[in-house]
Amino acid sequence: MSMNRGVVYVGHGKVEVQSIDFPKLTTPLGKSAEHGVILKVLSTNICGSDQHMVRGRTTAPTGLVLGHEITGEVLEAGRDVETLKEGDIVSVPFNVACGRCPLCKEQQTGVCLNVNPARAGGAYGYVDMGGWIGGQAEYVMVPYADFNLLKFPDRAQAIEKIADLTCLSDILPTGYHGAITAGVGPGSTVYVAGAGPVGLAAAASARLLGAAVVIVGDVNPARLVHAGAVGFETVDLSKDATLAEQVAAILGTSEVDCAIDAVGFEARGHGHEGAQREAPATVLNSLMEITKPAGRIGIPGLYITDDPGGVDKAAKSGSLSIRLGLGWAKSHSFFTGQTPVMKYNRALMQAILWDKIKIADVVGVQIISLDDATRGYAEFDSGVPKKFVIDPHKQLGHIQAPRANGSTEAAIS
Amino acid sequence: MSMNRGVVYVGHGKVEVQSIDFPKLTTPLGKSAEHGVILKVLSTNICGSDQHMVRGRTTAPTGLVLGHEITGEVLEAGRDVETLKEGDIVSVPFNVACGRCPLCKEQQTGVCLNVNPARAGGAYGYVDMGGWIGGQAEYVMVPYADFNLLKFPDRAQAIEKIADLTCLSDILPTGYHGAITAGVGPGSTVYVAGAGPVGLAAAASARLLGAAVVIVGDVNPARLVHAGAVGFETVDLSKDATLAEQVAAILGTSEVDCAIDAVGFEARGHGHEGAQREAPATVLNSLMEITKPAGRIGIPGLYITDDPGGVDKAAKSGSLSIRLGLGWAKSHSFFTGQTPVMKYNRALMQAILWDKIKIADVVGVQIISLDDATRGYAEFDSGVPKKFVIDPHKQLGHIQAPRANGSTEAAIS
Amino acid sequence: MSMNRGVVYVGHGKVEVQSIDFPKLTTPLGKSAEHGVILKVLSTNICGSDQHMVRGRTTAPTGLVLGHEITGEVLEAGRDVETLKEGDIVSVPFNVACGRCPLCKEQQTGVCLNVNPARAGGAYGYVDMGGWIGGQAEYVMVPYADFNLLKFPDRAQAIEKIADLTCLSDILPTGYHGAITAGVGPGSTVYVAGAGPVGLAAAASARLLGAAVVIVGDVNPARLVHAGAVGFETVDLSKDATLAEQVAAILGTSEVDCAIDAVGFEARGHGHEGAQREAPATVLNSLMEITKPAGRIGIPGLYITDDPGGVDKAAKSGSLSIRLGLGWAKSHSFFTGQTPVMKYNRALMQAILWDKIKIADVVGVQIISLDDATRGYAEFDSGVPKKFVIDPHKQLGHIQAPRANGSTEAAIS
Amino acid sequence: MSMNRGVVYVGHGKVEVQSIDFPKLTTPLGKSAEHGVILKVLSTNICGSDQHMVRGRTTAPTGLVLGHEITGEVLEAGRDVETLKEGDIVSVPFNVACGRCPLCKEQQTGVCLNVNPARAGGAYGYVDMGGWIGGQAEYVMVPYADFNLLKFPDRAQAIEKIADLTCLSDILPTGYHGAITAGVGPGSTVYVAGAGPVGLAAAASARLLGAAVVIVGDVNPARLVHAGAVGFETVDLSKDATLAEQVAAILGTSEVDCAIDAVGFEARGHGHEGAQREAPATVLNSLMEITKPAGRIGIPGLYITDDPGGVDKAAKSGSLSIRLGLGWAKSHSFFTGQTPVMKYNRALMQAILWDKIKIADVVGVQIISLDDATRGYAEFDSGVPKKFVIDPHKQLGHIQAPRANGSTEAAIS
Repeated sequence: MSMNRGVVYVGHGKVEVQSIDFPKLTTPLGKSAEHGVILKVLSTNICGSDQHMVRGRTTAPTGLVLGHEITGEVLEAGRDVETLKEGDIVSVPFNVACGRCPLCKEQQTGVCLNVNPARAGGAYGYVDMGGWIGGQAEYVMVPYADFNLLKFPDRAQAIEKIADLTCLSDILPTGYHGAITAGVGPGSTVYVAGAGPVGLAAAASARLLGAAVVIVGDVNPARLVHAGAVGFETVDLSKDATLAEQVAAILGTSEVDCAIDAVGFEARGHGHEGAQREAPATVLNSLMEITKPAGRIGIPGLYITDDPGGVDKAAKSGSLSIRLGLGWAKSHSFFTGQTPVMKYNRALMQAILWDKIKIADVVGVQIISLDDATRGYAEFDSGVPKKFVIDPHKQLGHIQAPRANGSTEAAIS
Repeated sequence: MSMNRGVVYVGHGKVEVQSIDFPKLTTPLGKSAEHGVILKVLSTNICGSDQHMVRGRTTAPTGLVLGHEITGEVLEAGRDVETLKEGDIVSVPFNVACGRCPLCKEQQTGVCLNVNPARAGGAYGYVDMGGWIGGQAEYVMVPYADFNLLKFPDRAQAIEKIADLTCLSDILPTGYHGAITAGVGPGSTVYVAGAGPVGLAAAASARLLGAAVVIVGDVNPARLVHAGAVGFETVDLSKDATLAEQVAAILGTSEVDCAIDAVGFEARGHGHEGAQREAPATVLNSLMEITKPAGRIGIPGLYITDDPGGVDKAAKSGSLSIRLGLGWAKSHSFFTGQTPVMKYNRALMQAILWDKIKIADVVGVQIISLDDATRGYAEFDSGVPKKFVIDPHKQLGHIQAPRANGSTEAAIS
Repeated sequence: MSMNRGVVYVGHGKVEVQSIDFPKLTTPLGKSAEHGVILKVLSTNICGSDQHMVRGRTTAPTGLVLGHEITGEVLEAGRDVETLKEGDIVSVPFNVACGRCPLCKEQQTGVCLNVNPARAGGAYGYVDMGGWIGGQAEYVMVPYADFNLLKFPDRAQAIEKIADLTCLSDILPTGYHGAITAGVGPGSTVYVAGAGPVGLAAAASARLLGAAVVIVGDVNPARLVHAGAVGFETVDLSKDATLAEQVAAILGTSEVDCAIDAVGFEARGHGHEGAQREAPATVLNSLMEITKPAGRIGIPGLYITDDPGGVDKAAKSGSLSIRLGLGWAKSHSFFTGQTPVMKYNRALMQAILWDKIKIADVVGVQIISLDDATRGYAEFDSGVPKKFVIDPHKQLGHIQAPRANGSTEAAIS
Repeated sequence: MSMNRGVVYVGHGKVEVQSIDFPKLTTPLGKSAEHGVILKVLSTNICGSDQHMVRGRTTAPTGLVLGHEITGEVLEAGRDVETLKEGDIVSVPFNVACGRCPLCKEQQTGVCLNVNPARAGGAYGYVDMGGWIGGQAEYVMVPYADFNLLKFPDRAQAIEKIADLTCLSDILPTGYHGAITAGVGPGSTVYVAGAGPVGLAAAASARLLGAAVVIVGDVNPARLVHAGAVGFETVDLSKDATLAEQVAAILGTSEVDCAIDAVGFEARGHGHEGAQREAPATVLNSLMEITKPAGRIGIPGLYITDDPGGVDKAAKSGSLSIRLGLGWAKSHSFFTGQTPVMKYNRALMQAILWDKIKIADVVGVQIISLDDATRGYAEFDSGVPKKFVIDPHKQLGHIQAPRANGSTEAAIS
């Protein structure tokens, strides 16, 4: 009999590796999914969004199989699949998308209309995202495979560069979407709020896009050290000096061309005392202050509609006290939402394959076994500057963790 | 000696027509402005933004000469003006812009960096906008005239179509900016919040852009009747039926492609009771509900940084409790700020001159004398569906008010 | 046994209605196509591109079943079709597209990589376009139906507006693509070369997009009369006055903002004598003359790689003597290729359903029976200002030809 | 009395350094230009476009003072100049632009309507471009200085990086325009036709924009060696292997995403024999072959309206036999014209100042004295992989030529 194991959310603050069902070519609603494939998972990453669920900051039910950042090998293809075959190595966009609705046809795969009866947009292993089973597991089913999957051109090359390519399923396109929507281009000065993986991916994307200078801000000293080591300017928001003052010390002016919110709804206050308490509007309000007139603010950081752990009643329903009057006076524009991974992943794959971006180093990829997933969740939650990548079949033993010296070379032995 | 008269803000709720200085070719800071022209004002409109000041909802000082919607005839051109001469009929964008700073060079004339020492962006006759003297007057000075002014191709034609062309200085480009930033194009379904002049101009712009259907919502019955008479679908927000329900009754779906906030910070609540009280975040929060996933929300309605009359402390500093979590879940984007009139006015002039838009009818232009300005302010404040245009030199006597029957033909006798 | 009849190219200048095979859910290469549907054809139009084949100006083989402009009713859906069911009324984009290749994902369905082994891009009933069987027939197979088909929201409404909606399969999006790529927007002055159906659809599209004035040029007097009757300015290129002179007489300047080549490779010379002979570069060279600096030239008119009837050796291989030096001096840009119908057809359907465009009137739709197809080809080839729409099942008897008076009302009885 | 010296075109194949008039604040038509400044020239480059004139391939008259690539120090500012003062170090866009016409307001400064009575667009020291005196001289006048000039933020830094910054006046924005119009972005595969300075600048721009791989093709072996040394893939067009074959050997596919024509009208044929003869359409026709469907072709290479040295009658009037049928079948688009320098130079300056692009190394900047200008012209004409920069006041003695080893470090001692 076929076997499978995966990471399961079992209650506030807890995940476990459990035996789970082997995937079938059926949808969460029980319909046949001959457009799908079964993947043997090659790598699957722990995401900050998973942490929101595990911390109890969403309405996720226990028993949920987690994992939406998946790279795998095609094990079996449904009858309707035309362009993929057994053995292909593929990247799975975290958005589940049908490829047939008006929004998919416009590359808005983050809000596909057909894969989630509750709202627009689906994802694997995530609350309110359509019930698609997560991929922090040995095997997973991916529907609409011809449309959703990105096939790597060469198997050996894919495995060699897996520490970078695994970032294509979410983190890199998410950061890149932030940079693109913020209008980053050659010569831009850029501020990224948040030195976690999304922030670092946004910063790396800004660098790839030709930004003149990229500044990353956080309150976590280890993350700031790491951000500096991989080549970004940094701002320590736990200091008493304001963000504007710290930006001015770097640029000679207190405003940047482009700003990216890579923090989201669990933002903490700035300054010595502020960093202790949650202050959900802090990031956006501070970005309006330091973004130039007519500037754009990209918001890849997650804001949610229902937050049981919100600081007040407004926050519990996803409302924030935003200083819109300031943004309006400066003619700002604001871009929200899940990145449509498919819009970007082919180009970013090319950038990785031709060595134009070293995303594994930048985000601090560390490969762990499936059995170590629980430890990975805990360590990531502590704020270490690492991106944990699960290797469920122990196929990636020769791939090493990135070097501590902050080299921008790929961390491949 | 040269004489001038203008509309002056004299205190809470009050304006007067007073004798004022004849304009000089100097800036508010007292520098020579040989790049400027003196205009004999042909028409100058009362704007909803003026009302914010007169109602005491800004920090405007008494003694301010009002008026930023100006069309005029060149009386005298400074020594460094090259492309204009005495007798030219011109439209004045309400944004004062230098034509020399990086933002002006990118068509972001709404946030010019050189015309207001206090912040980016200048305007005539407006608080905090650089001290440029207003144009609800017989004569006014316009700096950087070669850059700022739009010359009409034919004098007689300009005067014949003045009721439409007078809308090029602000109201039409402002509404159009809302429609453009909301992504309106052929076949779009569009909702416009607010049936005042900005809302009607946004609706007319959406129609010009090829929208399939344009819905206008308000709580003011007279404005709704007028909006219906000039060809738009309407939604009465004082009813108990929700906005989404009323939209669904028109479209068969409760979501529109594009949404425009033409209300701004003085928004009132919806429903039977709500309409009595101010509820500044109501409009934006309702727009997120009824805008499709991946939709865009244009915000030409004014939000300000300091509002002495705000309903609470947050509102007084321009902060609103916005349900960003909802917008984020739907991948919305948001576009704020003053319209950069110059980016649009030439194309819109062409649309007027070739009879593709009847903006005077749509917004309800009514031409009045300068002496009637006080009455115009009062009547406009009462919520009548009219746009008052002052004729300071009584040159437009033969131009009539738009017909009451809501014809979309131009209201020119 | 199932029966089918269709229009077949039988040799230089000749088409016949013949019995043909009933469609099957298989591809031209003989593979199963469970992603496809069988349509009962509701309407199918004769296109100028068909004429190129019939005139022997392509390498089309005899025996080809013609027809790529198809609207139909779903008779049978393949096993893997999800979003369509028997009885749905649908518009078929003339481009066959897979919905799975990188170009389809970017809305470049005109150059799909998977539906034609010979080159990028497929179509029904067309030489070198992948061997998909044409739809000037009673029944036709459409592959990748979930991706390709546009379903009309209401069956009765669809049939009532069929004379307009039938234009969505090709002619309207083709003209619209010309207008969009030429940069047409509110207030634009536009010149369209060619008063055939593509030119008229481009002109109607420009009007929908808010153009201030649209000028159509041709050498065919009947087509010019028709173009004038449906509301466009016209230029008679058989006259001795140059195009620039005639444009100046209309606009007061000899240059337009936007230009569209709706003629293509069978262009004739201008002026009294020129109109007699073919001069393939005439249109593009004249457009560079009359397009403003930095203007864009949209080229929906067809240029082909191999033309057995070309006027000289260069023309036979699709080469033209283009005055690129002139275009370069004026910073022009040029946009070629098949329109990606799917990018535009939903929005244009909305514009039709809400009565914003009367395309049937503009292009002169005339509905004929399948048995009259041969006559339709001959009459269309004579240059009459009509667009022939075949009604293979005589279901549209109550729909009348557009009125001769050039009314812009829909020609529906 | 004030003195000046400059490089003058004295006849077919010949330039001389001569005494010329000291600049005045007047236009070529003799009008006062109080909007202008007199610059002391800090650096001024020899351009391939100058060579076209010197080789007699244009209608340039003898006596023309050459030079349109100028960096300088403000010596004197006219009365109407507001934002510049004596001592400022500035980059001069080669396009002369008024900042007041509709096209300047849209950033189309390459086709300004007010600076050249003969046609749209002006330049310094160039035939048919408005008669503005060239800047390969000690001093030069720049009109509309507030609008045209880009001020460097720091004088010492500007002089230290002058070898890179001098490329902002033309060569870098020209190459960048080619890359931008070709649609280059992160992950793109790019082919650049021509390894001269424009081609190398286009290649460097593509790299800055994040291209995955940049291939440069030429027939000149020294230029190919240099292109390889500064990090680009190369294709030798004098070989018998076709361009498509050589591209496939690098990429594994014979088509690129984006193509740039950096050669222009003096193109030579490909292959062993072809390279000997001029074949003006070769480049564009070959680019259509190797550009993917729906790809874009940027054409910064110059094509002219009148070429006394054209290979045939068509070429003499700027006409080329272009295989448009092929481009059309592949849905290509084509972008021509002078780059609007101002649209790009501020961002590119930032990229230089923050060390994101080493353009001096890439194009092979070599600084020479004004007295060596004649030798510079001759050597450049021989096809050496160098970009000659004249130092008229011998202020840049300490700045060294780029290192021969192809380092991408700046060539500053």
